Amino acid sequence: MAKKKINVGIVGYGFMGRTHTNAYRQAPKFFDMPYDFVLKAVSGLEKDVAEAFASNWGFESFETDWRKLIERDDIDAVDICAPNFMHHDIAIAAAEAGKTILCEKPLAMNSKEALEMVEAVEKAGVPNMVSYNYRRIPAVTLAKNLIDEGRLGRVFHYRAVFLQDWTISTDLPQGGDALWRLDAKAAGSGVTGDLLAHCIDTALWLNGSIGSVTAMTETFVKERKHNLTGKVEPVTIDDACAFLARFDNGSLATFESTRYARGHKALYTFEINGEHASIQWDLHDLHRLSYFDHRDDSLVRGWRSIHVTDGDMPYMDRWWVPGLSVGFECSFIHGVADFYKGIESGEPAHPTFRDALETQSVCDAILKSAKTGAWEKVEC
Amino acid sequence: MAKKKINVGIVGYGFMGRTHTNAYRQAPKFFDMPYDFVLKAVSGLEKDVAEAFASNWGFESFETDWRKLIERDDIDAVDICAPNFMHHDIAIAAAEAGKTILCEKPLAMNSKEALEMVEAVEKAGVPNMVSYNYRRIPAVTLAKNLIDEGRLGRVFHYRAVFLQDWTISTDLPQGGDALWRLDAKAAGSGVTGDLLAHCIDTALWLNGSIGSVTAMTETFVKERKHNLTGKVEPVTIDDACAFLARFDNGSLATFESTRYARGHKALYTFEINGEHASIQWDLHDLHRLSYFDHRDDSLVRGWRSIHVTDGDMPYMDRWWVPGLSVGFECSFIHGVADFYKGIESGEPAHPTFRDALETQSVCDAILKSAKTGAWEKVEC
Amino acid sequence: MAKKKINVGIVGYGFMGRTHTNAYRQAPKFFDMPYDFVLKAVSGLEKDVAEAFASNWGFESFETDWRKLIERDDIDAVDICAPNFMHHDIAIAAAEAGKTILCEKPLAMNSKEALEMVEAVEKAGVPNMVSYNYRRIPAVTLAKNLIDEGRLGRVFHYRAVFLQDWTISTDLPQGGDALWRLDAKAAGSGVTGDLLAHCIDTALWLNGSIGSVTAMTETFVKERKHNLTGKVEPVTIDDACAFLARFDNGSLATFESTRYARGHKALYTFEINGEHASIQWDLHDLHRLSYFDHRDDSLVRGWRSIHVTDGDMPYMDRWWVPGLSVGFECSFIHGVADFYKGIESGEPAHPTFRDALETQSVCDAILKSAKTGAWEKVEC
Amino acid sequence: MAKKKINVGIVGYGFMGRTHTNAYRQAPKFFDMPYDFVLKAVSGLEKDVAEAFASNWGFESFETDWRKLIERDDIDAVDICAPNFMHHDIAIAAAEAGKTILCEKPLAMNSKEALEMVEAVEKAGVPNMVSYNYRRIPAVTLAKNLIDEGRLGRVFHYRAVFLQDWTISTDLPQGGDALWRLDAKAAGSGVTGDLLAHCIDTALWLNGSIGSVTAMTETFVKERKHNLTGKVEPVTIDDACAFLARFDNGSLATFESTRYARGHKALYTFEINGEHASIQWDLHDLHRLSYFDHRDDSLVRGWRSIHVTDGDMPYMDRWWVPGLSVGFECSFIHGVADFYKGIESGEPAHPTFRDALETQSVCDAILKSAKTGAWEKVEC
Repeated sequence: MAKKKINVGIVGYGFMGRTHTNAYRQAPKFFDMPYDFVLKAVSGLEKDVAEAFASNWGFESFETDWRKLIERDDIDAVDICAPNFMHHDIAIAAAEAGKTILCEKPLAMNSKEALEMVEAVEKAGVPNMVSYNYRRIPAVTLAKNLIDEGRLGRVFHYRAVFLQDWTISTDLPQGGDALWRLDAKAAGSGVTGDLLAHCIDTALWLNGSIGSVTAMTETFVKERKHNLTGKVEPVTIDDACAFLARFDNGSLATFESTRYARGHKALYTFEINGEHASIQWDLHDLHRLSYFDHRDDSLVRGWRSIHVTDGDMPYMDRWWVPGLSVGFECSFIHGVADFYKGIESGEPAHPTFRDALETQSVCDAILKSAKTGAWEKVEC
Repeated sequence: MAKKKINVGIVGYGFMGRTHTNAYRQAPKFFDMPYDFVLKAVSGLEKDVAEAFASNWGFESFETDWRKLIERDDIDAVDICAPNFMHHDIAIAAAEAGKTILCEKPLAMNSKEALEMVEAVEKAGVPNMVSYNYRRIPAVTLAKNLIDEGRLGRVFHYRAVFLQDWTISTDLPQGGDALWRLDAKAAGSGVTGDLLAHCIDTALWLNGSIGSVTAMTETFVKERKHNLTGKVEPVTIDDACAFLARFDNGSLATFESTRYARGHKALYTFEINGEHASIQWDLHDLHRLSYFDHRDDSLVRGWRSIHVTDGDMPYMDRWWVPGLSVGFECSFIHGVADFYKGIESGEPAHPTFRDALETQSVCDAILKSAKTGAWEKVEC
Repeated sequence: MAKKKINVGIVGYGFMGRTHTNAYRQAPKFFDMPYDFVLKAVSGLEKDVAEAFASNWGFESFETDWRKLIERDDIDAVDICAPNFMHHDIAIAAAEAGKTILCEKPLAMNSKEALEMVEAVEKAGVPNMVSYNYRRIPAVTLAKNLIDEGRLGRVFHYRAVFLQDWTISTDLPQGGDALWRLDAKAAGSGVTGDLLAHCIDTALWLNGSIGSVTAMTETFVKERKHNLTGKVEPVTIDDACAFLARFDNGSLATFESTRYARGHKALYTFEINGEHASIQWDLHDLHRLSYFDHRDDSLVRGWRSIHVTDGDMPYMDRWWVPGLSVGFECSFIHGVADFYKGIESGEPAHPTFRDALETQSVCDAILKSAKTGAWEKVEC
Repeated sequence: MAKKKINVGIVGYGFMGRTHTNAYRQAPKFFDMPYDFVLKAVSGLEKDVAEAFASNWGFESFETDWRKLIERDDIDAVDICAPNFMHHDIAIAAAEAGKTILCEKPLAMNSKEALEMVEAVEKAGVPNMVSYNYRRIPAVTLAKNLIDEGRLGRVFHYRAVFLQDWTISTDLPQGGDALWRLDAKAAGSGVTGDLLAHCIDTALWLNGSIGSVTAMTETFVKERKHNLTGKVEPVTIDDACAFLARFDNGSLATFESTRYARGHKALYTFEINGEHASIQWDLHDLHRLSYFDHRDDSLVRGWRSIHVTDGDMPYMDRWWVPGLSVGFECSFIHGVADFYKGIESGEPAHPTFRDALETQSVCDAILKSAKTGAWEKVEC
């Protein structure tokens, strides 16, 4: 049976360009999909880099202007892996061109931009998803399933952190290529949009809407050399952000993110405490889920470390055998598989652009509260 | 060489009465001390209980009115293990009677009371200490020593939680004997004074003063049967409290405490992230300290799990042999040993009443912020 | 109600002298016992040390010849904490004198000696127990209870190690006082009698009798200065010993002990794998038990880390509150409590001398196999 | 620059067929290689399965007779993923046909077969490697590097286990397709060749040659239905095997493998204790390495948990960013990359067939000892 060919064009050849490209290559091999992906074109500013990327990964062509990529009739789907400040224009242009769109997170620089993007894809009626990839780590998907089964009961607490330590050195410059995440003009914000957005997406998915927040942000290193200007310039992003939140379901939350937590590389952890049971997860050991159930026989009650590798675990029937774990990249492969299965079935995979708008609204409220010092409502 | 006899009177025969009594019995056996403690009297409201307690632990006598205990000339030192609301009057009476005073935490119901107590002991010139016992878990003392050696460099982050789950059942009553901690009249507040006070004491000790906070509190179960009245009454304490803080040294902090975190019995954890190194500790594995040092050779750099049992570890030369851990009760034994060594040497052990006043001020700011929704300065 | 007074005489003022003395002091305070222990006398070779020990711990008197201690009519119970080579003569003399006897492990230098001791206590009809203290760590007792409830089903595997690293330095001398364990004349053997004996005792208790073994031993450092002679002499003990075993219930086992496992101070661990469930324990985190039950719902199946501190856990109703752990010394306190409760009730606590004889027989078979290179039957 | 095309033919479409195929697809994308692999043909007995496998993974063709695959001139390299009993004939035929050969482990059914295979590839002068993939888990490669740097000093102990639990049910049949590993005719032995072979390969690589062993094996379930005959037949494999060993460097070892260790799916762990430092690794958390160095400052000395994801870790510069782990499959990708880099450079990657012969000899000695009950020398 011949599979449909989907011609994919990817905008961006950085870290995320690699993870997404790998996902298109791998998804059809591991998941039963009615599609074959053709890596039609990659787009990026620097010709040499774009050409080398295309050559290595097997793209048929490359572009140095994303508008050209979108104009091409031989592209069915656009995958946006460019820096945050470009998402808005690319997505709207792609929607208007009728392309299927997968966009790397965060959706936009702020909720105003995000809303325009949502309206564009909904008006155009094109399939759309945002790559909040951690939802599709099998252990995280398992957490969602356990919650949906009602195992936790009433939820009292949610807490999440995303801790890194790679910007502590004052010698690190900001801006340009690999360091655009340190420049608010390109990234919108610092850890709030880059890291907390992940935590918020997962939290909204697992625990529902957030009503209000109070936040603080800090920029520990006030000036850094800027790669684009060559001059020492003020740092415009938040190096750290912490906030308290109240969910609509009555639970309380603490969230924190920083790039100044010595010893943590990408320590995204979350915990949710319910009346009957609690769940913990940790990106540094992404193949495990911790679960505690108070209803267990008290003599053998304790936190269970679930090694999420058996065939009855989410996605794991497609991989290896029990005990053998998959890596970070699986989350993108699962995302591509789910996105296209959703297109086929008519039940869209999540988070859609509209889902991701809510995360953007929470980020806006956080950044506002960090300025006002007051509790701010999340405007949706 | 004959040792000095110290006649001790303990007010309170509950959980803390036991830990303190055990400490007086054990401290002189494990630590070289120039004192012998004589368990002279215990005081408690219920005669039968007081008598049984005295008999079991070897007290020479008992009282049912703490004022009588303080009036006795044969009592040198008063140890206050009564519920929080009694601390103020007992301490001031004991100070006026010239007694040496060890007071269980929190020092008082609020900072106003605490200040009066500080003034009383300082006016009387009597030795005084508050039993924030976790400072003297060997792993925690080690953390302090490592920080004092300057191993961490500039501190960016502090985070602490104290999570329990014993009040989730709505059937649990409040008030009276063992449950006075659930009655604001007896306890002053809920988790803020009972649990966060521990976290704050450690934090002030390890990381200096806190300048301002923003907090939220919640009472999840609004009504419970009250043991003293027999009626269902509104719950007056905070079941959960979380706050953000800024330390005077520029570091940011998150703190959280609750009795609704299913799966955690007494999970007091703290972490401190410095420029060069980070430290973690966890009461559930109190004999370990985790330490990460970025200056390590990168090929073998990782979090170190220090099993704090060797003879060069704080207090551990007095216990067993490497690998063999001590329990929770050691913290009280170390406290008694340090308090009396401090009296002998003239260098008082900490936290004194004055030190503990600062913790009380932070608690006041937290509870105020939880009402105003604004950042509140810590008034010292 | 007046309690019976038991006059205790302890032979030996070393590490074990301290743990046993502490146990007599603490047991009656934490456990309802119909006895009060009077620390009547301690015996040890060096007068100054014995006197200081007696003074510190509150013994009424001291002896420098254990025979005198046993001859005293005012001693009801003899507690043997002297080096292994002395156990035989002391125990037999004590039995003949009609004393209640608690003997530190291993019972004897070999099974021949042990058998004579068993016959002596049984002939005299005196209460007797050997202090294999790890049975009474609450988590280990819990393991026993879970096994006795039949939770594991048919057992397939048992594995245990006891790893230390304190004799790696070639500068460490052997023999005399604190280092008698390194001298086969005083200790009988090296790690086999000192460490593996613990592992074997637990194993026999949890999993029944061992039928046969094949073993290897090694002495890594062949010569050390001897403290008693001042000369460099051949090392006579086994530094390391590993053996394979077959239990009578059909399960297979591996056991290993060494004092050359860098990084491990007193890492006694055991694991038992049954048809339905498995159990793990680790002395370095002695307050936890790991449990896996295959019958759990597969979505939340995993190793459970049981924090053995709740009131329904063995012995823990007598200590603190959930979440607060006890230390190594509790095992001796529980031992004294159980021994005397057993005397009172007429159901002797275990291991008795006869129970401990079996451990001795396994040790004999191990040491024999290490010489012959063949599988050796355990002669009981 | 055009890359050389390597036409690959894979024999076997089972679990290992998938991992190897994936490796040929991924290696050139993540590692700079002068080769492009063309998936020319896959061979397997069942036409439908072979065809579907070829279609899914993008093979140009398929065969149902491995001899035809080897006869084809358009195949440069043969990759052997068939059951163990076929390795010998396929490898020798491939060698004679001048093919480059990558063979899944274990190399052969026994050392006699293995020797013939070694002689064949060496006579033919064809590049050859055996896929003991765990050597190329980054954390394991790091262990090798640390040992080669001399960080451990003299080695005293080595211990390894490989524990599974998937054959406990007596309802599980044996033999045929997915269960050929349970049939000695197809597999040669049970856990010895399947699991212990991995442990032995790593051990020989990290710690040098093994001189002698003493072993025990057991078959817990004596009869199972056989898939090929449909009848209940005696089980011919070892369900469990444990052995003691002495390495040529003077260190002692314990090894154990079983498929009856409830709670363990693929728990391959090893530990090596040296004079100065020790190392531990665990397949269930394959992205971590534990390291203890006694030369550390004693106040902060402890086991370090190294999260092997930074760019200076083996292979990890080619993957993602610090903190983001890779999965089990990476070990095969690294193997293919190393094998072909070795061919290009002229420094062959290991283990070659000759290296793997030694593992086979150790297995032979183990199985012999399990019968004789005596220590057996490893014949090399």
